[in-house]
Amino acid sequence: MNEYLYELEFKVRDYECDIQGIVNNAVYQNYLEHTRHEFLKDVLKFDFAELHQQGIDPVVYRVEIDYKYPLKSGDIFISKLNMAQEGNLKMIFNQDIYRKTDDKLMLRAKIIAVVLKNGRPIKPDMFTNKLLNI
Amino acid sequence: MNEYLYELEFKVRDYECDIQGIVNNAVYQNYLEHTRHEFLKDVLKFDFAELHQQGIDPVVYRVEIDYKYPLKSGDIFISKLNMAQEGNLKMIFNQDIYRKTDDKLMLRAKIIAVVLKNGRPIKPDMFTNKLLNI
Amino acid sequence: MNEYLYELEFKVRDYECDIQGIVNNAVYQNYLEHTRHEFLKDVLKFDFAELHQQGIDPVVYRVEIDYKYPLKSGDIFISKLNMAQEGNLKMIFNQDIYRKTDDKLMLRAKIIAVVLKNGRPIKPDMFTNKLLNI
Amino acid sequence: MNEYLYELEFKVRDYECDIQGIVNNAVYQNYLEHTRHEFLKDVLKFDFAELHQQGIDPVVYRVEIDYKYPLKSGDIFISKLNMAQEGNLKMIFNQDIYRKTDDKLMLRAKIIAVVLKNGRPIKPDMFTNKLLNI
Repeated sequence: MNEYLYELEFKVRDYECDIQGIVNNAVYQNYLEHTRHEFLKDVLKFDFAELHQQGIDPVVYRVEIDYKYPLKSGDIFISKLNMAQEGNLKMIFNQDIYRKTDDKLMLRAKIIAVVLKNGRPIKPDMFTNKLLNI
Repeated sequence: MNEYLYELEFKVRDYECDIQGIVNNAVYQNYLEHTRHEFLKDVLKFDFAELHQQGIDPVVYRVEIDYKYPLKSGDIFISKLNMAQEGNLKMIFNQDIYRKTDDKLMLRAKIIAVVLKNGRPIKPDMFTNKLLNI
Repeated sequence: MNEYLYELEFKVRDYECDIQGIVNNAVYQNYLEHTRHEFLKDVLKFDFAELHQQGIDPVVYRVEIDYKYPLKSGDIFISKLNMAQEGNLKMIFNQDIYRKTDDKLMLRAKIIAVVLKNGRPIKPDMFTNKLLNI
Repeated sequence: MNEYLYELEFKVRDYECDIQGIVNNAVYQNYLEHTRHEFLKDVLKFDFAELHQQGIDPVVYRVEIDYKYPLKSGDIFISKLNMAQEGNLKMIFNQDIYRKTDDKLMLRAKIIAVVLKNGRPIKPDMFTNKLLNI
């Protein structure tokens, strides 16, 4: 059984759907990004603008997405997130999207991010240490 | 007969089309913006980043768009632009989109922009004077 | 004083913002479209797919947008809508966007739509008659 | 040394860039999709609408993207593609994006697609057989 650190509800908007009437593949990355940013800002209390002024930027390094079933116009879904450190430098976001009506898993993603300081990777402790206090 | 200061060719991409198989209304504003920016950067030789550092930002103030016929997946079209000053403060971009195969007018837009310096409107002479030298 | 038929709350997502850190001009059309579609589907109970099978499609004919103040990353805003008939064939959507924290009017739009049946405009009675029963 | 079946040139548009001034991660999936569709339509001569009427739809099953260096506003880049079959059911698109000025590899992606007929996976022979004739 999966437990998650964070959950966010969305509703599919018509302009996010393509000719086939389903959500375009790229749009899911928008959903996943918004979920991560809300988590980092609202739960972990990160201020990206302030970090950026210190020369610190978290960036996405690799994305793996399994498309299981397509969301359709008007679908309500829950975007769920877990976060962990992997090795010295990587932050892992495990992100799953469930359709609300039947709790069906529609998409599973693993997002690997690193933290750059003036362009060079540093340990993501400032992010991962905060996880201990949730 | 219309003459234009600038023309740019595009091809409709599938992800820009909606459930009805036609280009989504909002996407035309992307086409129009890209045309203006290419014109301002490539023809008028403006450097937005440099202007921004001087506290100067051109901003869109009002948009009027007439949707005449819809573009479809794979359509090639020419985005054409004219520019003029109106009154003391306004820059007008008259922008038309023609389907390439039959030169049919698909969309007509009037974009009104102003130039802000530290948040206050200034005369757009730095933009409009350059028009004399094209 | 303005009263509205419909209101919908949004939160600006980071991917909707451009280099200047404000919502891109085209994205507001996404907000406005989503608001209209939710109104037409949830309040007026229209089924676009069913209409489409009868050869009936409402389409946007003209858009006028006044950009007053820019929304920024994280802003919460209320998208408000009124609807009326104009002449025989036009439906008018007057749509305003207010920032939630201070109720400031950020954007004002007038969207003119017509109803096509097999490609020819028909009276929008099926839409506007429903307004009497709200 | 890599050889590719197909190459397509793009230029980054300002509205594709985010607050950091670089192309948003999701937008690369738009570039990759457009490249695949152009390849399938222009080179392999597939007609998606016709296939769809026969109940046949190719769909993306899994995406793996390595983000190496970010594209910036105005960058010109070449999106390159290879395609192969894997096992009985999978089509693999290996897609790389190179910046044009210095031929630097900016992004590497592996897109796994399957072909559905009335919702069930079938052998993608109709796609992969055509590769023999390029």
